[in-house]
Amino acid sequence: SNNGNPSESQSPAADPEDPQKCPPVVTDIGALNCSSLNVESFIEQSIAIIMEDVVKKATDVTEKVCEWRSPEQLKELLDLELTDGGESESKILQHCRDAIRYSIKTTHPRFFNQLYAGMEPYSMVASFITEALKPSLYTYEVAPVFTLIEDAVLRKMMEMIGWEEGGDGIFNAGGSMSNMYAVNLARYHHYPHIKELGLSAAPRLVIFTSRECHYSISKAAALLGVGTKNVYVVPSDNSTNSLYPVPFMVNATAGTTVLGAFDPIEEIADICEKYNLWLHVDACWGGAALMSQKHKHLLKGIHRANSVAWNPHKMLMACLQCSAFLVRDKTHLLQRCHSAQASYLFQQDKFYDVSYDTGDKSVQCSRKPDAFKFWLMWKALGTRELEQRVDRALAMARYLAQEVEKREGFRLLMDPEYANVCFWYIPPSLRNLSDGPEFWKKLHTVAPVIKERMMKKGSMMVGYQPHGDKANFFRMIIISPQVSKQDMDFVLDEIHNLGKDL
Amino acid sequence: SNNGNPSESQSPAADPEDPQKCPPVVTDIGALNCSSLNVESFIEQSIAIIMEDVVKKATDVTEKVCEWRSPEQLKELLDLELTDGGESESKILQHCRDAIRYSIKTTHPRFFNQLYAGMEPYSMVASFITEALKPSLYTYEVAPVFTLIEDAVLRKMMEMIGWEEGGDGIFNAGGSMSNMYAVNLARYHHYPHIKELGLSAAPRLVIFTSRECHYSISKAAALLGVGTKNVYVVPSDNSTNSLYPVPFMVNATAGTTVLGAFDPIEEIADICEKYNLWLHVDACWGGAALMSQKHKHLLKGIHRANSVAWNPHKMLMACLQCSAFLVRDKTHLLQRCHSAQASYLFQQDKFYDVSYDTGDKSVQCSRKPDAFKFWLMWKALGTRELEQRVDRALAMARYLAQEVEKREGFRLLMDPEYANVCFWYIPPSLRNLSDGPEFWKKLHTVAPVIKERMMKKGSMMVGYQPHGDKANFFRMIIISPQVSKQDMDFVLDEIHNLGKDL
Repeated sequence: SNNGNPSESQSPAADPEDPQKCPPVVTDIGALNCSSLNVESFIEQSIAIIMEDVVKKATDVTEKVCEWRSPEQLKELLDLELTDGGESESKILQHCRDAIRYSIKTTHPRFFNQLYAGMEPYSMVASFITEALKPSLYTYEVAPVFTLIEDAVLRKMMEMIGWEEGGDGIFNAGGSMSNMYAVNLARYHHYPHIKELGLSAAPRLVIFTSRECHYSISKAAALLGVGTKNVYVVPSDNSTNSLYPVPFMVNATAGTTVLGAFDPIEEIADICEKYNLWLHVDACWGGAALMSQKHKHLLKGIHRANSVAWNPHKMLMACLQCSAFLVRDKTHLLQRCHSAQASYLFQQDKFYDVSYDTGDKSVQCSRKPDAFKFWLMWKALGTRELEQRVDRALAMARYLAQEVEKREGFRLLMDPEYANVCFWYIPPSLRNLSDGPEFWKKLHTVAPVIKERMMKKGSMMVGYQPHGDKANFFRMIIISPQVSKQDMDFVLDEIHNLGKDL
Repeated sequence: SNNGNPSESQSPAADPEDPQKCPPVVTDIGALNCSSLNVESFIEQSIAIIMEDVVKKATDVTEKVCEWRSPEQLKELLDLELTDGGESESKILQHCRDAIRYSIKTTHPRFFNQLYAGMEPYSMVASFITEALKPSLYTYEVAPVFTLIEDAVLRKMMEMIGWEEGGDGIFNAGGSMSNMYAVNLARYHHYPHIKELGLSAAPRLVIFTSRECHYSISKAAALLGVGTKNVYVVPSDNSTNSLYPVPFMVNATAGTTVLGAFDPIEEIADICEKYNLWLHVDACWGGAALMSQKHKHLLKGIHRANSVAWNPHKMLMACLQCSAFLVRDKTHLLQRCHSAQASYLFQQDKFYDVSYDTGDKSVQCSRKPDAFKFWLMWKALGTRELEQRVDRALAMARYLAQEVEKREGFRLLMDPEYANVCFWYIPPSLRNLSDGPEFWKKLHTVAPVIKERMMKKGSMMVGYQPHGDKANFFRMIIISPQVSKQDMDFVLDEIHNLGKDL
């Protein structure tokens, strides 16, 4: 190990040339005060805290989901300041406990606030391994294991999509990055010269998407110089506001963020084929349905997509982040589009097959081996258990929707297609109002207050939002197999208890 | 905890409504086979493997840096296939051992191959905590602790840069992303309409940079629609190849990737001020010198930059990834440039101060709390120990350079300004050749062979590359305080031993 115990490392008799005992004191080139830390003991103590406070406590339904503090209160509690001198081991361990204590327990069975939730032990362990090993996925030389594992996972995901002849792909730092890659690839496919010459050499390009698409399409349009106004929403808005735009891509969403809705991929693919448009399917959230014989019809036609974004860190519960971008192309488009051929990293005179150096497919330089998290859990669970989990989550969502319909004071926004259950809670004081603007205006203020009370009580976390012209409503997301019907009933009871006086 | 032991969880008498025992069997909405995994025991066993095989073995100088296998061999060894059925706990644990065994030990004292190296226990523990907690940094609501910690770290980094009045910033998925942010902000600052209208509404824009800049500037130019040919290298290439380009940004590099060279920031800042150009300093690698009273002169003038990229995961050894992007602007430029105002995430009627919801500053949606890794180690070590480590690494680099100059058969490329030591090894058979094209052609083939032998032996890892018109040379990177003069001597001895017959 790299550090000795305190007595060894502080002893003047320690061999200054033995790097295994402590950072050697090389007096002629600048002395380094040898840290008194016993590394192994510190890590073991930290891990004991993680086991107790995260693995056990943060997944225990009888514990709180969050211990809410305002930013001002939390700043006081955390002692954030960074100073010249270091702090003791016991203080550092206390910082670890505090960071955990005041963090949201996204692994708690009653965290329903985002498109991810729950504790998945295999991917968590995989994360620990890669955090400790510090690989970076640019060359086979530096990350042989994770290069091959990424390739294996991508191939299996392409098989689920139905690309019988394979394709290409890469894991990215989140689904927004994958959607951005799609825009860039679609553009490069149609206008390869843009890479060198920029958009000043191109006509005005436009992207078609459905209204419910994720905001990352808009962010990509801004970043890539396409412009947010050149993202055209169909079918409700098919006007063009100036002459001669050239469409190059259609974005279809499989599992929208708020409603969990699915665009009709087959019909969109027909249009894309007819007009030679790149079809990207943002299946970051809905891709998991491909695991299910029962539900994969939601993505019917996805094998016709040119590219797919699919995040196993959402419904499939791999640790954050785990986001795949998949391309049907087999002409190295991904590499050609993104490559910069850095000669210090991608030497061509290496002694192994440099096609295993995948780094130039990415716009990142160092990149994390996120595929390993998904690989290890897939190995452990098998496709069948992943399928059962998806089926169970969607069944649970339907159970919740039925309960919402049964209960007085709850109103369903729409039947769930997927794992999003959107509904309003109407407090008794509003139940006799007629369904007009006054009613909706008042109802709009209800969810934020219930959310505030929920956070301060710490009993659960459910998101709310307005949507288009719809007043604030709750969006329940059901993912984890750790969640029971009991938890569904609890959510409705709790919302009623928190909001019945409003 | 969320899973019981095997006997409980498989027992038909288990309470199907108790989510704490096992994933409940809810027969009317789809049964889920209860996994027999004892979660805590599995995690404990995995952590024991990490402690033994990574924390201890992968930092032990007497162990190998790598156990080289070709892609074909490694595919056989790893059993990569994903199947319908799951695998046993013991098989999964064996996969963990194998993944570690065949991975490169980047934490080993003799890994000198990249701009990161070494084991840093505090940031590793911080990584474990956040991997287990799964926070995502978009809203204060979901990541209160890490939102405040990111802010505290960014503020301290700005203080080191010398921005007395503060600024703004964000941690990104690597330095390439930070450089991309710089290009986008510079563009938005000069031409805010591009965000909406795209580049078809803009003149041809160009970026100035020095030749030694990182390839991410080129990747950013391609992705953002600027075009790689609109990246102009100064001063050696100041011709323009068509009329009316409009410069909007200068990229200066503080610590180049290969040579570790520093652009003269002060002089470049003078020019940027005169012509109203955005000055970005890519200090991903060299930023650490700001910690050192002795070496911070290398970045003199950096306080005049509009933006800075600085990766604590490089010289400062925070776990991968830890990459800050800092902006001097205090008019919410970062937010205005990148915002998409998603109403489902960034609700304006929340009960707390929504200026703490930092997610819309990012082009990502989910984003990892990388700042925590740096914060915890900074807390533990204090600024002074970070300074000593930088000073020591640079002293060690100078020691190595001196040794290179002393030894027969070694030739230094240039005096190191920073922690990169670039040199040729000339085998005895070439030492009598005169310094002409034939010599360099032969020398060019030497480093790749030595590298192959080094990898197959597993004794150390040092990178090589050609550079401009320079034949392949070695680039040693010295970072970790675990590295001794003994290790420096070993590197030169080993290169000679591996290459003396060539």
